[in-house]
Amino acid sequence: MSLAIAIVSGGLDSVVLAHQLKSEGHDLHLISFDYGQRHARELEYSRLCAARLNAPHEVIDIRAVGRVLGGSALTDESIPVPHGHYAAPSMAITIVPNRNAIFLTIAYGVAVARNAQLVATAVHSGDHFIYPDCREAFVKSFDAMQRLAVEGCGDAGLHLHTPFVDKSKADIVTAGAALNVPFHETWSCYEGNEIHCGGCGTCVERKEAFALAGVADPTEYLA
Amino acid sequence: MSLAIAIVSGGLDSVVLAHQLKSEGHDLHLISFDYGQRHARELEYSRLCAARLNAPHEVIDIRAVGRVLGGSALTDESIPVPHGHYAAPSMAITIVPNRNAIFLTIAYGVAVARNAQLVATAVHSGDHFIYPDCREAFVKSFDAMQRLAVEGCGDAGLHLHTPFVDKSKADIVTAGAALNVPFHETWSCYEGNEIHCGGCGTCVERKEAFALAGVADPTEYLA
Repeated sequence: MSLAIAIVSGGLDSVVLAHQLKSEGHDLHLISFDYGQRHARELEYSRLCAARLNAPHEVIDIRAVGRVLGGSALTDESIPVPHGHYAAPSMAITIVPNRNAIFLTIAYGVAVARNAQLVATAVHSGDHFIYPDCREAFVKSFDAMQRLAVEGCGDAGLHLHTPFVDKSKADIVTAGAALNVPFHETWSCYEGNEIHCGGCGTCVERKEAFALAGVADPTEYLA
Repeated sequence: MSLAIAIVSGGLDSVVLAHQLKSEGHDLHLISFDYGQRHARELEYSRLCAARLNAPHEVIDIRAVGRVLGGSALTDESIPVPHGHYAAPSMAITIVPNRNAIFLTIAYGVAVARNAQLVATAVHSGDHFIYPDCREAFVKSFDAMQRLAVEGCGDAGLHLHTPFVDKSKADIVTAGAALNVPFHETWSCYEGNEIHCGGCGTCVERKEAFALAGVADPTEYLA
């Protein structure tokens, strides 16, 4: 058995990732980050995922990091969340600078401390348009950097696992459906309402992914 | 003028780095990390450095990260600080897994948010024995990874600046002396006493560096 440290936000992609790792026989240790997201809804769904998979779970408080990075619609309540399609230029405001690299270096620290064999993250091809730290070139470079950074520490086989990097969100929905992932226990919306708003970038992308995958969407949307 | 984000712990190396950047004409923004060090003494010296150089300074609270990494003599009070020479195998216990990579990714986030041109850190050749994330191969790989991670965000010339990576600590003392760095306002000791203990790894290294550089050591040691 190998131990996987999986970064799980509570969103659809990372929850499917956790289920997939479990189904492949990995021991799981889930980590989530509280970076001062506008709402804590996602984190609740990461806790549900951990409970469902019977996996240890740590929510790591890096709100102070979120504060110094500032200026993103994802952390700053004074900046409105843009609505419309995710790939649009208006979505640049949802970039938290260097977020994935920060999450991943901390995940690698956890992996070394726990002698894990892999660090897993659910970056996927739909993110590539606007988030440079979700692209395959970044993933390869990050893995190479980490091999040098922790040389001689932790497990020699420790590596970065990104099974969705060349997959679309629709592919992830298809994979999740095959694993019976309870999609209603995942959260995508950038707004913090009781139910998904249906109009922000990730809601639009979520609806589209279910439609493209031909999978019934159990999500309740405001609009 | 270019803006430099410098990681300053309050130790001798990083304080000399900050003075050197200032002398070279960079605008400075200093950041320090509270990762649950056993004592906050270093951080006081980082504040003194910022005040002296009239530079903005942020102490970023990532104690939650320190807690999940655990198990290092630098953060866990139940583990005794090893005494003796720094390069000895016993010093492995002072490794906080992936610490530099974590600090650097956060620093890059700050750099993008502030449109800075460089991220500076005071890793030096004396650290290479035991800390893989202080070696030149790591530094080059990290810089390459970050260019991909923040492509299209922040300043296109943003890069990692490590002027001491092939220098010894004695070289840093020499450089600091030429810049009139007030060495008594820097802190090396792993213990949290009022004055430097004189016996822990970094105290031994500090004494040795002044001796090798032929610079009078203003540090008051317990032994």
